[in-house]
Amino acid sequence: MEELVGLCEGSSGKPVTLPELWGPCPRIRRSIRGGLEWLKQRLFHVGEDWYFLMVLGVLMALISYTMNFVVGRVVRAHEWLYRELGDGHLLPYLSWTVYPVALLSFSSGFSQSIIPSSGGSGVPEVKTILSGVILEDYLDIKNFGAKVVGLSCTLATGSTIFLGKLGPFVHLSVMIAAYLGCVRTKTIGDAKNKTKEMEMLAAGAAVGVATVFAAPFSGVLFSIEVMSSHFSVWDYWRGFFAATCGAFTFCLLAVFSNEAETITTIYKTSFRVDIPFDLPEIFFFVALGAICGIMSCIYNFCQRTFLFFLKTNGFTSKLLATSKPLYSALAALVLASITYPPGVGRFMASRLSMKEHLDTLFDNNSWALMTRNSSPPWPMEPDPQNLWFEWYHPRFTIFGTLAFFLVMKFWMLILATTIPIPAGYFMPIFIYGAVIGRLLGEILSIIFPEGIVAGDQVNPIMPGAYALAGAAAFSGAVTYSISTALLVFEMTGQIVHALPVLMAVLVANAISQSCQPSFYEGTIIVKKLPYLPWIRGRKLGSYPVTVEHFMNRTITTLAKDTPLEEVIKVVTSTDVAQYPLVESTESQTLVGTVERTHLVQALQTEPAPWTPGQQPCLQDILAGGCPAQPVTLQLSPETSLHETHNLFELLTLQLLFVTSQGRIVGSVSWAELKKAISTLTNPPTAK
Amino acid sequence: MEELVGLCEGSSGKPVTLPELWGPCPRIRRSIRGGLEWLKQRLFHVGEDWYFLMVLGVLMALISYTMNFVVGRVVRAHEWLYRELGDGHLLPYLSWTVYPVALLSFSSGFSQSIIPSSGGSGVPEVKTILSGVILEDYLDIKNFGAKVVGLSCTLATGSTIFLGKLGPFVHLSVMIAAYLGCVRTKTIGDAKNKTKEMEMLAAGAAVGVATVFAAPFSGVLFSIEVMSSHFSVWDYWRGFFAATCGAFTFCLLAVFSNEAETITTIYKTSFRVDIPFDLPEIFFFVALGAICGIMSCIYNFCQRTFLFFLKTNGFTSKLLATSKPLYSALAALVLASITYPPGVGRFMASRLSMKEHLDTLFDNNSWALMTRNSSPPWPMEPDPQNLWFEWYHPRFTIFGTLAFFLVMKFWMLILATTIPIPAGYFMPIFIYGAVIGRLLGEILSIIFPEGIVAGDQVNPIMPGAYALAGAAAFSGAVTYSISTALLVFEMTGQIVHALPVLMAVLVANAISQSCQPSFYEGTIIVKKLPYLPWIRGRKLGSYPVTVEHFMNRTITTLAKDTPLEEVIKVVTSTDVAQYPLVESTESQTLVGTVERTHLVQALQTEPAPWTPGQQPCLQDILAGGCPAQPVTLQLSPETSLHETHNLFELLTLQLLFVTSQGRIVGSVSWAELKKAISTLTNPPTAK
Repeated sequence: MEELVGLCEGSSGKPVTLPELWGPCPRIRRSIRGGLEWLKQRLFHVGEDWYFLMVLGVLMALISYTMNFVVGRVVRAHEWLYRELGDGHLLPYLSWTVYPVALLSFSSGFSQSIIPSSGGSGVPEVKTILSGVILEDYLDIKNFGAKVVGLSCTLATGSTIFLGKLGPFVHLSVMIAAYLGCVRTKTIGDAKNKTKEMEMLAAGAAVGVATVFAAPFSGVLFSIEVMSSHFSVWDYWRGFFAATCGAFTFCLLAVFSNEAETITTIYKTSFRVDIPFDLPEIFFFVALGAICGIMSCIYNFCQRTFLFFLKTNGFTSKLLATSKPLYSALAALVLASITYPPGVGRFMASRLSMKEHLDTLFDNNSWALMTRNSSPPWPMEPDPQNLWFEWYHPRFTIFGTLAFFLVMKFWMLILATTIPIPAGYFMPIFIYGAVIGRLLGEILSIIFPEGIVAGDQVNPIMPGAYALAGAAAFSGAVTYSISTALLVFEMTGQIVHALPVLMAVLVANAISQSCQPSFYEGTIIVKKLPYLPWIRGRKLGSYPVTVEHFMNRTITTLAKDTPLEEVIKVVTSTDVAQYPLVESTESQTLVGTVERTHLVQALQTEPAPWTPGQQPCLQDILAGGCPAQPVTLQLSPETSLHETHNLFELLTLQLLFVTSQGRIVGSVSWAELKKAISTLTNPPTAK
Repeated sequence: MEELVGLCEGSSGKPVTLPELWGPCPRIRRSIRGGLEWLKQRLFHVGEDWYFLMVLGVLMALISYTMNFVVGRVVRAHEWLYRELGDGHLLPYLSWTVYPVALLSFSSGFSQSIIPSSGGSGVPEVKTILSGVILEDYLDIKNFGAKVVGLSCTLATGSTIFLGKLGPFVHLSVMIAAYLGCVRTKTIGDAKNKTKEMEMLAAGAAVGVATVFAAPFSGVLFSIEVMSSHFSVWDYWRGFFAATCGAFTFCLLAVFSNEAETITTIYKTSFRVDIPFDLPEIFFFVALGAICGIMSCIYNFCQRTFLFFLKTNGFTSKLLATSKPLYSALAALVLASITYPPGVGRFMASRLSMKEHLDTLFDNNSWALMTRNSSPPWPMEPDPQNLWFEWYHPRFTIFGTLAFFLVMKFWMLILATTIPIPAGYFMPIFIYGAVIGRLLGEILSIIFPEGIVAGDQVNPIMPGAYALAGAAAFSGAVTYSISTALLVFEMTGQIVHALPVLMAVLVANAISQSCQPSFYEGTIIVKKLPYLPWIRGRKLGSYPVTVEHFMNRTITTLAKDTPLEEVIKVVTSTDVAQYPLVESTESQTLVGTVERTHLVQALQTEPAPWTPGQQPCLQDILAGGCPAQPVTLQLSPETSLHETHNLFELLTLQLLFVTSQGRIVGSVSWAELKKAISTLTNPPTAK
């Protein structure tokens, strides 16, 4: 039988099995099979890690949706409790404050006890990781658990503590991406490939943003702007794919759970589309951008200063070091007491959730005009039909509450960001910006009640559009990003204000970028993370500075003819990860690098039979199996700072050796670069 | 007097002039002056080239608007002529055909006579320039003139020839950017700074796209996707700034000329926003993406093959080489004759302009449903209220005309792209995609006349949404870009179909990218431009390949001890731009490079007084003032292909030397890299 099969070879030279010969139309079937084979190969060829990207997107959407669902239930329970506790003052106050205090101290205690690095937004750390520095702790699976539980508790405090979910979600997504990258490496067995894993992490950051706001475009762009300084179109496409999968799944889940009838946007607006704004309004939009830019500088400055103060002040630093839950509880108590609705909270719409804050702020009617002649009393319960009444107080008017909100939330927000819990700081900033915009919009609508250009058709000013621009401009200025302009359009489903919003964001960014480091960079500075700063404004002064001026000249080299005793001495006295290997002590010609771990291992194993009569040297253990890596890229002393900076940023390098005519003369790592750049930015005072 | 001034020094140590001392409030005035000084410095510090970017944007918007204006007038004149020439057949036919034939042969003759490289879209060339290769001709001021005049003529032929303005506009914008970059270099005197000029060019490409469609977001993203493979966030911000300036000016001009009442979008749509689509429609959108992807592969393949055929076929290549205007006239005659409305043109809506094509295709009513029971006759003149009647023919029905359009325009478009005139090929592709989408949408609307999910509320299918998705998917697949999805939203001012359109574009891109090179890459291949190909799909096979395998080993080095006679021999026998300079012929230790021009100059000047008794060598002329440049970056033979490719792409390099332990062993330029990559992609058949 087998022989027969061997004999019956088809025209293509392939063996043909008997059943195939006997079935009908063997040719067609074979070609179909060939086609399927081709398709399979094609899909595998394109795909490969597309599958992993898809899994990443779907997984994150599931987590995001589940978290929203759980948090929603907990918040509703709190609302119910607060409502049911009747008319007194003590019980409602207790129910209003104890809930967030308990949640926040649990969140803080739980996450900190599992892993201390789980606090904060995680974006500065992700930024550092994406620049090539490995921070093991931050991609740990323990961190994942701590972050998920901690973040859920934080979000369940609702608008009392006023924190969001973007930052930790980006971090979670990057963790999942790192895990999937490991799985991929193991299944495909492509262990060397560091680039691939970095690509996966970059896609992870995009998915994180996209699954929170169901906004794939701005998700990708925001993650790029905030996390990296360079990126490839390849990463961007992969980011889009993963983000779209994530956003689609997220929307789909909403439809399946009957929350929405079809895929739709989160904060739907209904702005007028024929003539959304009069031309002169552009000027006010630009002015709003300038205001937001200045405010963002003040905010970033105060935030950084306060963080720094907490770190250096004896009492607070001790409190934060020893009893984090206590600090969290204290801060939560302060924040919750202030937002207590029958107290001060009534002047800052504290009964609204964060989603309702945005929904009301993007409303296109002018509240100032609507309440000009009538003054409705402050309702005992939020009216679901007219939620915006929460922003109105008969004594304070709309302007009073909006301004009061701005003043109070400014320091409350800074206080909230210092609580050591997993929490996102983007959403509160976004809402804060929306309030700035709304305030300006309301003022304009009362000044120009008939619209600015009085023609046949009246185009009243829509304060909601200013809220939109304010949110985009303020959050963009604080985080140094322009894609927030796109985010507001994706969130609201309307893009009629494209140009004014973009202009406001650009102006705000121009101001904030020229004055203060961004929110995330500020945190990096305070936390002293290993991160390469920008050469700001591409200072022209940086061009004549060359590697020669700032390289590290005191490097420990190992020559092939170094005696083993000396090698042991070097290995024990220094703790660098790798040593440059030179041809001989005399020539110092760089030939490769030896990793310390390999060296230690080789030294610990039993000595190979040395050539008798000769002193054993490094050459022997290299020949005995200790691996040496080649040096793939070398700098010259004449390379400029700018070029080196580019290299480090583009290739996410950690260390490069400097050679001159083959001789090793120094090394450059990001520490040297950072120092050189900071010298450029703040030149030492001349003596 | 001078002494007095010298004596009166202020507290800040600065000399105080007398009038200053005598004026009121010298302190306040001084601090105000200080503040202004600070502001000025700040603005100058941030700004510097912001001003140039703004000028670039405004200038391009002015050119774009003026061109639109002039072209609009010429087109209207043609329409008037055609209408007035009465009922016969000869005169209208002549007026219909002679006009484009004359314009096109003038466009071709004029632009080709000024500079032959002005033909085509220019995008492939810009892509090459942005990758670091200098193509002098393409940034010439003569080219600018030829392109502006030629493009205006091309556009004035209207939808008869069916060509757009995007590509040449990008090219024009890059030319202006290059010119402004020169001006900037001259005023600031920062001649060395190549990076800055490249940044300006990148911003130029973004401005080009943004000023054509008044779409800053997608302008920036499209230019990035199409032109580069890597980019920095810095470039992206600058691109946004310039693009916003351009788009704003463009819109402003429309308002000032009373074309629009306020800043608004070009192709306004009015899709239903509550429930824009039923969930199952997502499936059809994805299917549409797949169809567009397959169509784009076929289109790109045919287009490239036809271009190649024209180049290799004896007759056509001779015709194209000697009498370009004749070829243009012949092609124009064919295209115009086919679109003659009383002839075949009536089946393909040839009386509509390209803008009207899009306006009608994005209509949200289903034409199939509207004409199901009534069949209006083909109107003698386009009805401005119901322009879509042009797409309907009583005998052919809507489906017939749409399908006929697709069949005919397929080869007409390919023919049109071969005419040697400045013309853009994006817009026709965009419309073609819209027709594909519309056809599918109309078919679906007749299959599901009540919408797919029959609930309480009927959501009829909107074929316009499919046209939108089709346009984005097809144009995205042909050009390898995802930002076309964003472009359609910016163009129409509605973003309700964000997810379905994005999914269609992603599917279309996945198919086209795995099968065929993009439209622009195809042109680069046919034109044999010096361009570095991608490592497609990041083939894993590329990782073990190192520089050693593909570097150029036959390099001519000049040693410091090379006798002058030999140097002269080398310089006359080779024509490379620079020679590697080594320490000695024996050691071959790389110390720097010498440029050929410098060497020739030094050799031509009178010989310096050599040391008597010794043979003059290279060392002497180096000491005599011939400059040698240091080598800032060296490769090792062990560097991987992948790493080298990254370096070349990221740093836009042209040549790197390979050293091993200081000795020069080879060089790598993009030519070697390209060969290595093509060997990877098409491995030589094993023998």
